[in-house]
Amino acid sequence: MKKFSVITLFPESIESFAQSSMLKRAQEAKILRISAINPRDYTTDKHRKTDDRPYGGGPGMVMKAEPILRAAEAALKRIKKHESRSKKNLDSKFLIPDSTKIIILSPRGKQFTNDLARRYAKKYVHLVLIAGHYEGIDARVKKILKAEEISTGPYVLTGGELPALTIIDAVSRQIKGVLGKEESLEESRTASSEVYTRPPEFTHKKKTHKVPAVLFSGNHAEVEAWRKKRAR
Amino acid sequence: MKKFSVITLFPESIESFAQSSMLKRAQEAKILRISAINPRDYTTDKHRKTDDRPYGGGPGMVMKAEPILRAAEAALKRIKKHESRSKKNLDSKFLIPDSTKIIILSPRGKQFTNDLARRYAKKYVHLVLIAGHYEGIDARVKKILKAEEISTGPYVLTGGELPALTIIDAVSRQIKGVLGKEESLEESRTASSEVYTRPPEFTHKKKTHKVPAVLFSGNHAEVEAWRKKRAR
Repeated sequence: MKKFSVITLFPESIESFAQSSMLKRAQEAKILRISAINPRDYTTDKHRKTDDRPYGGGPGMVMKAEPILRAAEAALKRIKKHESRSKKNLDSKFLIPDSTKIIILSPRGKQFTNDLARRYAKKYVHLVLIAGHYEGIDARVKKILKAEEISTGPYVLTGGELPALTIIDAVSRQIKGVLGKEESLEESRTASSEVYTRPPEFTHKKKTHKVPAVLFSGNHAEVEAWRKKRAR
Repeated sequence: MKKFSVITLFPESIESFAQSSMLKRAQEAKILRISAINPRDYTTDKHRKTDDRPYGGGPGMVMKAEPILRAAEAALKRIKKHESRSKKNLDSKFLIPDSTKIIILSPRGKQFTNDLARRYAKKYVHLVLIAGHYEGIDARVKKILKAEEISTGPYVLTGGELPALTIIDAVSRQIKGVLGKEESLEESRTASSEVYTRPPEFTHKKKTHKVPAVLFSGNHAEVEAWRKKRAR
């Protein structure tokens, strides 16, 4: 079983998405588990403060280190319990096990790719995804957790929640048993070509729209040549 | 008011996320509106079928054109009503108005960037986002709707829902009034540097972790020089 822990101030946005379609199915089949942990639950002050002004000046707020570190420890503790049940030998001080990867979602991070999704699925049992607000997280978090900054693309978002879900989706698809046999076959063809399905023609605003005739030819070589030509 | 319409087989995953944080606030302030439209509600057959086998062979399923076209028309109709209330002159046959951009989320599409987010926010009143399953949508949809294929990054996802929400989030941030004055200032600095906030030091696993001393110097030029050096 693979485990995803998302550290986020908006756990409900993670949880609601994790209960949809493929991710819901995979969780019900106990192939994976997705949980959200709120750093606010790991504050120690009366106001449960999770952010503060940046040192050195400048506008914006920075997420405080300690609530996130405690939330990450809670995530590691849970997986440790889980792993020790499977009799693996783990350090008792919540050192980060080799089977765990800790990621900070950041527009400055390394670009996430499908190759990385495959590697994460193969190499790690537990992914901890820290979703900050885009102004940033106290830099001590990254250092202490030996976390890697990852970006899902060249744009700025309100928070790391959508990137975290994007990574969970892309990695989950690479885990055996998550997709059906047929769905798994599809990936290699996503860069293939235009696709068409029934009906062979229909009328839209008085204009008829037909499927290209070659697709009805039954000539496999011709179809493949046409698809190759249409590939981008 | 800006409007986002997402055409999706999983409207609940769009709606639940649209009710979180910034997007919820902006909708309550009537700065924007996010709606999800299910092509399944626009099928005409008994089984409400939205996909079928690809012509020319191959595994996988292709999303049928007509339910999506009807869902898109419904989205355009709604905005048309809305715009005619504001006395704009619009064609009566659901031609696509200049103020509407229709996007198909696809791993083969053009890379979405923050520049595109700014352009969309400035140029369009209505974004229609069509979230297909990754095997694809009958190619006649793209042609008829003059849609553009857009990708949020080099990875394969189960569906276009997370990319659609990613685009909505990035574009919304560029709309006046969505972010507070201070938050809007932050964007230019996302590529800046390491950030730190209180406390100035803390102990974690018997080790003390301090904020770099330069940030307490009060010397603005030194702080800026240090930040520049740390920028990536």
